[in-house]
Amino acid sequence: MEKIKVAICGYGNLGKGVEKALLNPANNDMELVAIFTRRDPKEIETISKTEVISIERIKDYTDKIDVVILCGGSAKDLPEQGPTIAAMYNTVDSFDTHAHIPEYFEKMDTSSSLMKKISVISVGWDPGMFSIARAYAEAILPTGSTYTFWGKGVSQGHSDAIRRIAGVKDAKQYTIPIESAMERVRAGENPKLTTREKHLRDCFVVAEEGADLERIEKEIKEMPNYFDEYDTTVHFISEEELKENHSAMPHGGFVIRSGNTGNNTQIIEYSLKLQSNPEFTGSILVAYARAAARLNERGYYGAKTAFDIPLSMLSPKSEDELRKGLL
Amino acid sequence: MEKIKVAICGYGNLGKGVEKALLNPANNDMELVAIFTRRDPKEIETISKTEVISIERIKDYTDKIDVVILCGGSAKDLPEQGPTIAAMYNTVDSFDTHAHIPEYFEKMDTSSSLMKKISVISVGWDPGMFSIARAYAEAILPTGSTYTFWGKGVSQGHSDAIRRIAGVKDAKQYTIPIESAMERVRAGENPKLTTREKHLRDCFVVAEEGADLERIEKEIKEMPNYFDEYDTTVHFISEEELKENHSAMPHGGFVIRSGNTGNNTQIIEYSLKLQSNPEFTGSILVAYARAAARLNERGYYGAKTAFDIPLSMLSPKSEDELRKGLL
Repeated sequence: MEKIKVAICGYGNLGKGVEKALLNPANNDMELVAIFTRRDPKEIETISKTEVISIERIKDYTDKIDVVILCGGSAKDLPEQGPTIAAMYNTVDSFDTHAHIPEYFEKMDTSSSLMKKISVISVGWDPGMFSIARAYAEAILPTGSTYTFWGKGVSQGHSDAIRRIAGVKDAKQYTIPIESAMERVRAGENPKLTTREKHLRDCFVVAEEGADLERIEKEIKEMPNYFDEYDTTVHFISEEELKENHSAMPHGGFVIRSGNTGNNTQIIEYSLKLQSNPEFTGSILVAYARAAARLNERGYYGAKTAFDIPLSMLSPKSEDELRKGLL
Repeated sequence: MEKIKVAICGYGNLGKGVEKALLNPANNDMELVAIFTRRDPKEIETISKTEVISIERIKDYTDKIDVVILCGGSAKDLPEQGPTIAAMYNTVDSFDTHAHIPEYFEKMDTSSSLMKKISVISVGWDPGMFSIARAYAEAILPTGSTYTFWGKGVSQGHSDAIRRIAGVKDAKQYTIPIESAMERVRAGENPKLTTREKHLRDCFVVAEEGADLERIEKEIKEMPNYFDEYDTTVHFISEEELKENHSAMPHGGFVIRSGNTGNNTQIIEYSLKLQSNPEFTGSILVAYARAAARLNERGYYGAKTAFDIPLSMLSPKSEDELRKGLL
């Protein structure tokens, strides 16, 4: 059987996560054939020694690539690159700006439908796996409440926000779910939880020499949207300590549905505990790249989300093998 | 929009669970129109006052019913009734004899394909929801191990096996997952676990007056396949105590995938904590009945499992609403 030819567009942490997943022999029904970048290709050394090509030349490879995995950021890269590339290639991405998903879906759908390509959007772990957990649980237990907790994990957005404060040299922010709130949910209490009751924020900050630590701590804790609605702890540490203890990119989270049938409480819980967020997200994108290639070959096109794709499409196993081994 | 017309075939605990789910106003895109039984319909009183009809007359209702939910047992009822009914109606069932699924699938597929009906098989929680958890996790983390733990919950099969022992009047058996084994899995150890290391069996037995308790306990603990490979505890209790404390039908379980990407461990965990096993399974069947009706209307037919059905088909919400609210 011919291998599915995959390209990566954007070679940051996520792009490298995708590359590692494609190097896994268990995924050898796929092969990585190109990495597109906005940077100077000569400056980039890849783990797999795959050819690195300027994104400007992406349109020249349409006969060599089955799926392009879009690894740019959701804020600027994907809204710009997505619709253009979706008109040329089957695509997969982890677009995660929840509020803008309907708009992004429409644009990707228009673009990919035109050329009868398939564009699978928002298939990271949230949105993506957690969306499936939420929709599946709600369909089965329509009476009840769903709770999503994130962490413990590094929030890139919150870390960046701290770094923009005057006097801050570097920072890492951890989002931590509050265990007692999760226990109430698991006990079937269906509590109404405020933002503050669901998550804590824990910040590790390297200050410039002589900076006013009190002011920095106050600015962090009072920052609107990012921190003001949370209980936030600030630790000032050295640059070495930050590098040594806070360089990893762990994350995770919980989706808990507490529902009722008759007089009975039924709890469905889905959770992730990830040592590397980008490697995990990369692995999800690779599984959906397989699905995208297969579905397009069967004649499906347009934008799709995790809700639209049968799980059998994600596995390298045949439908017979899945029924025999995993059902 | 016209409601999906649903019938139940088999009115035991599971049939009643389905009936309760159909009475939930959140599922009012469906309506229960008939209950088929092998018993004398006159002897059956239903919660919803739905018409009860002898199963012998099931072929006369093909213009009145969109989906029949098969609520018979997997050992005898479904292999017999399933293929016959699947030739007349779209069907949904929770066939759960794992070893016989491929054979059952083939029979249902032949039968339903002939009349261009759809037969959704094995969509309880295991097989069903847990199958999805296993296949999804393995597709995303192909390098790793998957563990399924069941309980704490009542095993009907094991309870029945105890009841067949001479001198036993009644019994309930609980399957209990061993917490320390689960912790090793969650820690990413990828342990090799024997049957004995994964689950305990806890038995509550009502003995006939004057029965030899020591012999009964020995017969339980040494029973091949059912108990001999487990650490089993036997408690002799009174009939009243059994009725008062052990009449509920709780169950649940855990699917844990421990996988690796690069040098990192990634853990995916899915769990259920159910106060009523039949009501929960009934709720799953109802969601898949919606999917069966919709898919058949779109021209799909033949046997399908949980792996083949996009999750958007299960929800009463539109695809737009799902993307906006749950993605």
